[in-house]
Amino acid sequence: MLAVETELQMIESRLVSLLDCRESLISEICRYLVAGGGKRVRPAFMMLVYRACGGTDEDLGGPIDASVALELIHSATLLHDDIIDSGKLRRGKPSAFSRFGLAPTLVAGDFLFSRAFELCGRFDEHLIKMAAEACIQLTEGEVREARLRHNSSVSLEDYKNFIELKTASLFRCGGRIAADLAGVPERIINRMGRLGTAIGLAFQMIDDLLDVVGPESKIGKPVGSDLRAGIPSLPVVLGIAGSEELRRLFQDGSAAAGGPGFNRALELVRAPHVLAAGRQKAAEQAALAHHELACLKPSRYRDSLAAMINDQVDREV
Amino acid sequence: MLAVETELQMIESRLVSLLDCRESLISEICRYLVAGGGKRVRPAFMMLVYRACGGTDEDLGGPIDASVALELIHSATLLHDDIIDSGKLRRGKPSAFSRFGLAPTLVAGDFLFSRAFELCGRFDEHLIKMAAEACIQLTEGEVREARLRHNSSVSLEDYKNFIELKTASLFRCGGRIAADLAGVPERIINRMGRLGTAIGLAFQMIDDLLDVVGPESKIGKPVGSDLRAGIPSLPVVLGIAGSEELRRLFQDGSAAAGGPGFNRALELVRAPHVLAAGRQKAAEQAALAHHELACLKPSRYRDSLAAMINDQVDREV
Repeated sequence: MLAVETELQMIESRLVSLLDCRESLISEICRYLVAGGGKRVRPAFMMLVYRACGGTDEDLGGPIDASVALELIHSATLLHDDIIDSGKLRRGKPSAFSRFGLAPTLVAGDFLFSRAFELCGRFDEHLIKMAAEACIQLTEGEVREARLRHNSSVSLEDYKNFIELKTASLFRCGGRIAADLAGVPERIINRMGRLGTAIGLAFQMIDDLLDVVGPESKIGKPVGSDLRAGIPSLPVVLGIAGSEELRRLFQDGSAAAGGPGFNRALELVRAPHVLAAGRQKAAEQAALAHHELACLKPSRYRDSLAAMINDQVDREV
Repeated sequence: MLAVETELQMIESRLVSLLDCRESLISEICRYLVAGGGKRVRPAFMMLVYRACGGTDEDLGGPIDASVALELIHSATLLHDDIIDSGKLRRGKPSAFSRFGLAPTLVAGDFLFSRAFELCGRFDEHLIKMAAEACIQLTEGEVREARLRHNSSVSLEDYKNFIELKTASLFRCGGRIAADLAGVPERIINRMGRLGTAIGLAFQMIDDLLDVVGPESKIGKPVGSDLRAGIPSLPVVLGIAGSEELRRLFQDGSAAAGGPGFNRALELVRAPHVLAAGRQKAAEQAALAHHELACLKPSRYRDSLAAMINDQVDREV
């Protein structure tokens, strides 16, 4: 991401400065999560799209603030997700929820969301609505995923559907906003939105595979967390298509946390043919992403976007 | 509130229409809370301020949307508050949290917040920032209140301070936005903000007194809920100033839910002199509110605002 290193540094300091408020506990929780890691994939993606679309230094404040806003929204959802999943570990350390408790973590998430809302005030109505719509989709994706937990009839289409809402919507929105702020025509804005969707889907798919492959030291949480929570992640969805045994273990809850079938289920979802099929699905999204990139003029930013796509799918699974 | 009855009907249908989304469970939870009651005090206050400031029919869409947005934000905080307090009852029926569970209720709150954010997209930057700042204050008030739970050194100033953040901030913001949209000068906008603060404080103070007086059939939740949760409500703060016994019961947790001292503590906080002092504090805020009203030209809307203030403090305590 060296092509936008300066921009990412500006984003980082702006992000951290926005965590201050009148109640130090809120700031502490937010700093614990936000300043304690995070790969800033969304801001990097947005700044690369902005630059690759010819965005100039002159109006840099806009895309910087938009990137910060989306990272704040993403962080808010992480805090709330940890409450929902009772997640004990996040990025290799105790989650904010397990460290600070339910009430302060919930409120800190609301605070981050409010900060994002504040930051968006400077943008045109259509951009604000786009960001708000992405937030709505995040909540819909969360509920849709919950509805499919322990549900062995989940299809690959169901899966793509909820990760499109839950993960890809912020990337899609980020791609569109960055392109819009760079001043490119509608046609390119649409393609940058589709680029975001494809990258977001690939990103989530690989994350799902890493979740079952581990090791814990690399993924920062116990191996098989999705399986424990009954989440129909990519290897689960692909695995149950070919294994009646896995279907049963997933459906009746014995593959879940503390269940007698967890180890066996984990073995089934990390079978080589399941992982290979999963990598294939992610590679398809990567190919779609590369296809969308082709509409941009060659530049080092476009090259960096291409490298970002490859890096995502090449994460060792 | 007959003076703005038509506007409130428009607000009601707009509000309900915005609860629809792609996941029926989210809509169901939101409808359960929003359509299942609520006095719409904030929208009524905002529309009266808008009209009393000379706001016309022509631009009615603005103040309607702003009122709906603030009611959505308020509703989001109710959903999250019930999670934080494990509230079993809300408005005389099971809370959304106890009916639908933690995860869906949390996400539904985020959804309502996102809808408000979406709705605010149409406004000028300074109005959006004002609304976002109010949201931030809500979170700060929540944490500040939590910090003072079971803390017997809490002063009346501490109390006013956290209810100003937790309750009055939305009224303050609503008063300012409504006046701004009506096109009055800055001086009047400021006074409508102060009017909102005073009404919000009076409103919370009376709510706090009703909480200990009940009866349950009237307040829609068990008598003494604040005391059970260790919240330093107005009668608690006033009571501990004159009772070493109450101070001890509040501090050591024996006045809390299931504690051996709850009944005795309830007796102490509803002592006639405590309630009288509480009514006096609310009356002081009502007087401040009436004072701010004086800057407006006489109208039936101003009369309605005056009646609203009186109705708030005259709720039978």
